[in-house]
Amino acid sequence: MAGSTFGQLFTVTNFGESHGPAIGCVIDGCPPGLALTEADIQGDLDRRRPGTSRHVTQRNEPDAVEILSGVYEGKTTGAPIALLIRNTDQRSKDYGNILQTFRPGHADYTYWHKYGIRDPRGGGRSSARLTAPMVAAGAVAKKWLREQFGTEVRGCMTQLGEVVIQHEGWDHVHQNPFFAANVSQIEALETYMDALRKEGNSIGARLYVEATGVPVGLGEPLFDKLDADIAFAMMGINAVKGVEIGAGFGCVTQKGSEHGDALTPEGFTSNHAGGVLGGISTGQDIRVSMAIKPTSSIRLPRPSIDLNGDPATVETFGRHDPCVGIRATPIAEAMLALVLIDHALRHRAQCGDVQVTTPDIARRG
Amino acid sequence: MAGSTFGQLFTVTNFGESHGPAIGCVIDGCPPGLALTEADIQGDLDRRRPGTSRHVTQRNEPDAVEILSGVYEGKTTGAPIALLIRNTDQRSKDYGNILQTFRPGHADYTYWHKYGIRDPRGGGRSSARLTAPMVAAGAVAKKWLREQFGTEVRGCMTQLGEVVIQHEGWDHVHQNPFFAANVSQIEALETYMDALRKEGNSIGARLYVEATGVPVGLGEPLFDKLDADIAFAMMGINAVKGVEIGAGFGCVTQKGSEHGDALTPEGFTSNHAGGVLGGISTGQDIRVSMAIKPTSSIRLPRPSIDLNGDPATVETFGRHDPCVGIRATPIAEAMLALVLIDHALRHRAQCGDVQVTTPDIARRG
Amino acid sequence: MAGSTFGQLFTVTNFGESHGPAIGCVIDGCPPGLALTEADIQGDLDRRRPGTSRHVTQRNEPDAVEILSGVYEGKTTGAPIALLIRNTDQRSKDYGNILQTFRPGHADYTYWHKYGIRDPRGGGRSSARLTAPMVAAGAVAKKWLREQFGTEVRGCMTQLGEVVIQHEGWDHVHQNPFFAANVSQIEALETYMDALRKEGNSIGARLYVEATGVPVGLGEPLFDKLDADIAFAMMGINAVKGVEIGAGFGCVTQKGSEHGDALTPEGFTSNHAGGVLGGISTGQDIRVSMAIKPTSSIRLPRPSIDLNGDPATVETFGRHDPCVGIRATPIAEAMLALVLIDHALRHRAQCGDVQVTTPDIARRG
Amino acid sequence: MAGSTFGQLFTVTNFGESHGPAIGCVIDGCPPGLALTEADIQGDLDRRRPGTSRHVTQRNEPDAVEILSGVYEGKTTGAPIALLIRNTDQRSKDYGNILQTFRPGHADYTYWHKYGIRDPRGGGRSSARLTAPMVAAGAVAKKWLREQFGTEVRGCMTQLGEVVIQHEGWDHVHQNPFFAANVSQIEALETYMDALRKEGNSIGARLYVEATGVPVGLGEPLFDKLDADIAFAMMGINAVKGVEIGAGFGCVTQKGSEHGDALTPEGFTSNHAGGVLGGISTGQDIRVSMAIKPTSSIRLPRPSIDLNGDPATVETFGRHDPCVGIRATPIAEAMLALVLIDHALRHRAQCGDVQVTTPDIARRG
Repeated sequence: MAGSTFGQLFTVTNFGESHGPAIGCVIDGCPPGLALTEADIQGDLDRRRPGTSRHVTQRNEPDAVEILSGVYEGKTTGAPIALLIRNTDQRSKDYGNILQTFRPGHADYTYWHKYGIRDPRGGGRSSARLTAPMVAAGAVAKKWLREQFGTEVRGCMTQLGEVVIQHEGWDHVHQNPFFAANVSQIEALETYMDALRKEGNSIGARLYVEATGVPVGLGEPLFDKLDADIAFAMMGINAVKGVEIGAGFGCVTQKGSEHGDALTPEGFTSNHAGGVLGGISTGQDIRVSMAIKPTSSIRLPRPSIDLNGDPATVETFGRHDPCVGIRATPIAEAMLALVLIDHALRHRAQCGDVQVTTPDIARRG
Repeated sequence: MAGSTFGQLFTVTNFGESHGPAIGCVIDGCPPGLALTEADIQGDLDRRRPGTSRHVTQRNEPDAVEILSGVYEGKTTGAPIALLIRNTDQRSKDYGNILQTFRPGHADYTYWHKYGIRDPRGGGRSSARLTAPMVAAGAVAKKWLREQFGTEVRGCMTQLGEVVIQHEGWDHVHQNPFFAANVSQIEALETYMDALRKEGNSIGARLYVEATGVPVGLGEPLFDKLDADIAFAMMGINAVKGVEIGAGFGCVTQKGSEHGDALTPEGFTSNHAGGVLGGISTGQDIRVSMAIKPTSSIRLPRPSIDLNGDPATVETFGRHDPCVGIRATPIAEAMLALVLIDHALRHRAQCGDVQVTTPDIARRG
Repeated sequence: MAGSTFGQLFTVTNFGESHGPAIGCVIDGCPPGLALTEADIQGDLDRRRPGTSRHVTQRNEPDAVEILSGVYEGKTTGAPIALLIRNTDQRSKDYGNILQTFRPGHADYTYWHKYGIRDPRGGGRSSARLTAPMVAAGAVAKKWLREQFGTEVRGCMTQLGEVVIQHEGWDHVHQNPFFAANVSQIEALETYMDALRKEGNSIGARLYVEATGVPVGLGEPLFDKLDADIAFAMMGINAVKGVEIGAGFGCVTQKGSEHGDALTPEGFTSNHAGGVLGGISTGQDIRVSMAIKPTSSIRLPRPSIDLNGDPATVETFGRHDPCVGIRATPIAEAMLALVLIDHALRHRAQCGDVQVTTPDIARRG
Repeated sequence: MAGSTFGQLFTVTNFGESHGPAIGCVIDGCPPGLALTEADIQGDLDRRRPGTSRHVTQRNEPDAVEILSGVYEGKTTGAPIALLIRNTDQRSKDYGNILQTFRPGHADYTYWHKYGIRDPRGGGRSSARLTAPMVAAGAVAKKWLREQFGTEVRGCMTQLGEVVIQHEGWDHVHQNPFFAANVSQIEALETYMDALRKEGNSIGARLYVEATGVPVGLGEPLFDKLDADIAFAMMGINAVKGVEIGAGFGCVTQKGSEHGDALTPEGFTSNHAGGVLGGISTGQDIRVSMAIKPTSSIRLPRPSIDLNGDPATVETFGRHDPCVGIRATPIAEAMLALVLIDHALRHRAQCGDVQVTTPDIARRG
C-alpha cells in the first residue's frame, strides 16, 4: 500500500536505496516447479547495469544477484523468492554539494516534502538503481512466460533526442550500447551523446517494447485492464512521461474505418490496437511506446532554492546517465513481462486454462 | 482482483451492464462527515449523459442516481456509499445483427475468448455506459477534495480528428457540447461531425485534464506513483490509447536544462513535470493529456469473422457516439479526482497531515 | 481497505444499513458459466431471515434478492454480480430512546468514537442484518463449490447457554428453528428461550460448521492460511468471540502422539487437525466451532453513560434476537463457503488444477 | 496474494526457509521519522530465539538482524525496511529420514500436495523459524505504538498441558524460560517438561496476550474488524488451533446482563468484550487467548504413509521444541502489535487523528 509492491498475484516487493548496503526484492506467487538459478537472472541484469559504455553512468558494479529463498534443488517451490544485490560502488561524497538544495526536475523536492526526511545519497530511494531488482524479477517472469506460452518480450530505443532510429532488425539491438535496432546509426548516436556530455546536459528518448506469443484473454475489466496495467507499469519507471498502446496518439486523427483491425480467418490484418481490445489481450503482439525525460542531474548550473526556500544555484557533479533512456530498454521489458505473468495468473484464477492465440498476420517482420 | 474495483483506500466497486436492469457502484473508505446528497452527484452525471446533442448517442436516459447507503441525515457516515442508476432506455434489438460476428476494434472478440460467454446487449460490460458510476463516484471525490484542500479538477477537448482546438478560456467549456475551451471553433467542429455522421464513420480525439490546488506529497513510490496511477486510471477509460503527464512525448527532444522546472522563492517557473516529480505531487497543477480512439461501432460495412472463424461482414446500426471523446471529459475529470483522493488518504495514513503547496507561478491563465 | 470487502479473488463488497433503503453486495471474480438465478440464492436467505419463529426478532421481511448484473441468460458472465435486497420493515421509532446513550456491549460506543457520527437506526451498519448479503453471496459460492468439487458446507448449533445439544443427525437440523441436530431436545430449548424472553435477557451460544469434499491444497502460507482466513471470517460475524479449528482448545492438554492424525493408505484415521495442516487443507473435513455472545440489546435496564459522558440508564425496547446464535448457522456456512471458493481460485492461480482428496475415514457419521 | 505479506498499510512481506541461506522480511508503510536501530529489534528476537533453555530446540543461532534499507542516520525514511537474518546452524542431515514419509500432524503432507514439490530441510517454509522475521517487524511496530499512544503489548503462558498457571504478576514473565507470570510454578513446569522430553512426546499450551493504552476507534467494519484481524493473525501462527477475544468461549453461558460491560463516567467496569465492540477498539485493554497444539515432530514412532501411499513408520530425530507454545509468547505479542499499527494507520487514513481512550477501570492489576 506504501507503493513498494508491484503486481497482484505475482507480486514483487522492492527494497533498498542507491547508496545503502543492498537492494533487492521478494517475489511472491511464482508458480512452483520452474527451473531457476542465478544465471537465469544475471543476463538481464548485465544488460541494464551501469558502466558498460561511456554513454552511461560510470558507476561500476557487478550487480551480482543472490537467490535467498524459494528455490530448492534448482526449482521454485511456490514459496517467496528473495533476490539480493549488494551495493558495492557507492561514493556518497559525490552528492555532498546537493544536500541543502533541490535539483530542478528531481524527486529531491517531493521526497523532502512528503516524508520530512530523505536519504540524499545518490537519490536514495528515487534512484533508477532500484530498477535493478525489477529487471531481476522480470527475468523470472520472462522465463515462465516463455516456457508456458512461448511468449517473448523485447524492446529497443526508437528515438534519442531529435534522432529518429529506423528499425532495421531485432538482432541489431544486441550489437550496440543504445539498444538501437539499427547498427548503421550508431555512429550518429555516439556523436550526439559525446556533444551532449561535453555540454554537461542531458536528453530525452523514446522506447518501444513488445510481447509476442501472448495468449488471448489476459486483462481484467473494468479497471485492471491489460493496457491500463501496462500504462501503470511504464509510467512508474523513472523518468517516463508518456505511454502509448498500439497506434497511441496517432489514433486522434484516425477514423474508425482505419483504426479497427480487420479480422480474417487467417488472423488480424493490422495491429492499431496494440494487441488489446476492451482491456483484454487479443493474442496479437502487445505494442507499447514510451517517452523518457532528460535526466535532472546535469552539470550545467541551474537556478533553484535551498531547504529554507532561499535562492541557490545547483550543479551536479556525481556520476549520472546523460540519457536515462539508454539503459531503460531492459527495464521496460521486465515491467511488461511482470504485467503479463500477473494477468496470466489472474486469468487462470477466474477462467481456468489460458488459450492459444489467433494468428497475428500483421506482425512486424 | 477481477478488476471491478478502483482505488486502494477510497475504493469504487463498479457493477452493471449497458442493457441490464441497473448500473452502479459502491464507494468504500469515504471519510465521514462530508455533506452529501444526490444533487451533489447529479450535476456531473448530467454532463456525461447521452442524448444531449446530435453529436452523441441518441440513447435517452436521465441517469438519475439513488444513494442507497452510507449517508445519514445528509452526511457521510464512513460506511460504504452505494449508488444506483437504473437503465431505462435499453433497446436490445438494436444489437441483434452483431451477435454472431466480431466488430473490428471492439471488445466483442476478447470478452468472448476470455469468458467463453458474453452479454452482447449494447456491449454489455465493455460499454462506455459503465463510466457513469465512475462519474458519480468522482463527484463525491471532487467535493471532498475541494472542501479539504481547495483542489479543483477540470478538463477540455483539445483536438477532434485533425481539428486542433485553441485554448481560449475555461469558461468556454460549459458553453458547447464538445467541452471545447473555445466557442469560436464550435461551428467548425459541428461541420466536421456532421460530415462524419453522414459518412457512417467515427473519429479520434485528444483531451486535456488538470487539477489545481493539489497538496504537495501525494504519491507512493516505488510503483504506486501518482503519475503511474493517473496513467492507469486514464488508460482504463474506454478507448484511451495514450497518456501524457506534463511535457509528455514532447520531452523526447528536450534537454535537461530545458525540461527541469526551475524553483524560485516565489514558486516553480514552468511545469514540464506536469506537477509530479519522482511519482510525488509537487503542489503544481497536475497536467494530463490523453488520446481517444475512434469508436469501433460504425455504420460502414467492415470485413470480419463470425463465431466459427468464417468470413463475415459487419455493419453496426445501433445508437453510437461517432466520437467517444466528446463525452469523455467528465469521465477523465472523475478518474483524476478518484486518483487524488485515494492518494490523499494514503498519504495521511503513512505521513499524517497533508501540506500546503508551493505556489505554481507557471499556472495556465 | 475500509473493511467492507471480503475475499481476495472472489470478492464480496457489502453495503447498506439496517434501516436504510436497501442492503446488498457486489461479487467480483465469480467464474463465468455458472448457472445462477435468484432461486439459487433465496433458499439460504429464507433460512436466515427474521420472523420465522417466536425465538428470533419479529421484524418481518421477505428479504427478496434481485440480481442486478453479471448474469446473462441464466449464466454468470464473469462480470460482477450485484445483489440487492430492499429493506421493507424498518421502524426507526423503535430506537428513539437509545440515540443519546450507549448500550453496554454494543457497537454504539465505538462507531460514535471512530466516525464522530453514526446511523443509530437499528444499529445502522453494525446490525446483524448486514449478514444477509453474505448469506446471498455464500449461496453462489456453495453452488460453484458443489458443482466443481462436490464440496458441501453445513452447520448446526451445539450449545445454547448451558444446554449442550447432542448431535443426533444432520437431517434434524432442518426440522427446528434452532438449527439443532437433535429434534428430541427442541422442547428443552424452547422452554429455555421462553424463560429468557420473559426475563428480558439474552444468552450466548456455540455453533459448529463443517465442509466436506474439500480439495487438498487450499490455503496460502505464510499468513493467508486456510485456518487463519476461517478464523478471520468467523470472528468477523457479529457477536462471535471465539473460534476453534479441529480439536481447538482441546489441544492444550493433548500430547503430540494423540493429536497428530495418523495417515494410512485408506486415509486419515482421525481429524484433530480439523482438515488443515500448515494452513493448507488436507482433504479431510474442515471443522470449525465458534462462540457467540449474548445480544447487547436487552430489555433489562442497565447502567451506562450518555453522549456527554454522564450516567444514564439504558433499556432497549426494539425487536431483537434474544440469542443471535440461533440465526447464525446459515451465516457461518456462508462465510466458510466464501473462504473456500476464494482459496480454490487462489490455488488455481498459482498451482493450476485442484486435486482430488485423500479419503477421510474419520468423517462424522 | 500468495500469502507471504501481512497487513494492509503496514505490510510485512516474509521470506525464507528454515535451512536456506537466510530468512527476513520487508516492511513497507512504516511512518517516517521513527528512531530505529538493530538494537531496537534484537531484544525481542533474543526472547524468541532457540537454544535458550533445555526445554526448547537446541538449534543454536544468534538470529542477528541486519537492517538493509529504509533507515537513514538512525531514522526511518518512509521507504521499505528490509530486515535480514542469516541462518547459521542448519543441519540438513537431521531430516534425512523423513524425506520419503509424511509426519502425522505436519505440513509435510499438504505442502507436497499443494505445490508438487517441497523443501524438506527443517520443515522448509512451514517451520516456526519463519516467525523470527515477524518478531523483528513486531518490534518496529511496538516502538511506534509506544511512542505514539503509549500502547504496550505483553503476553504470557497460562497453561502448559494440564498445568494451569496462575497469574502472579507481569514482572515474573521475564524471570523464567516459560514466559509464565508465576515464578513459584516454574519447578513444576520444568519437571513436567523433563518427563515429556524423556518420553519423546510433545504437549499443547495456552497463551494470553494483551495490549494496554490502545486508542479507541481502531478496526474496520464490516469485515476487517479489529478482532477478526487479531483472530487471523493468531490463527496464522504455527500450531495455533483456537483464538478467543475477551470472554471467548465463556460467553456461551453468559447472559446479556452479565456480558455487556457497563459504562460509567469513570470508564468501563468490566472487560468481557476484550476491548472490542462491533469490531472497533473501545480503548480498553485488548485481551486475547489462544490454544497451541503439541509439536508434530516427536521421537515416538508413529504409523504413517510414504510418498507412494504405502504404510510407513515415522520417527523424528532432529532438534525440536517439545512444546512450541513455550517460545510463542513473543510471537503472539509481535502479531498483535502488527495488527494494531496497521489499524492505527487505516484509521488515520479514513478518519484522521486517533483519539485518547476512555479509562479502563477493569484493568488487570
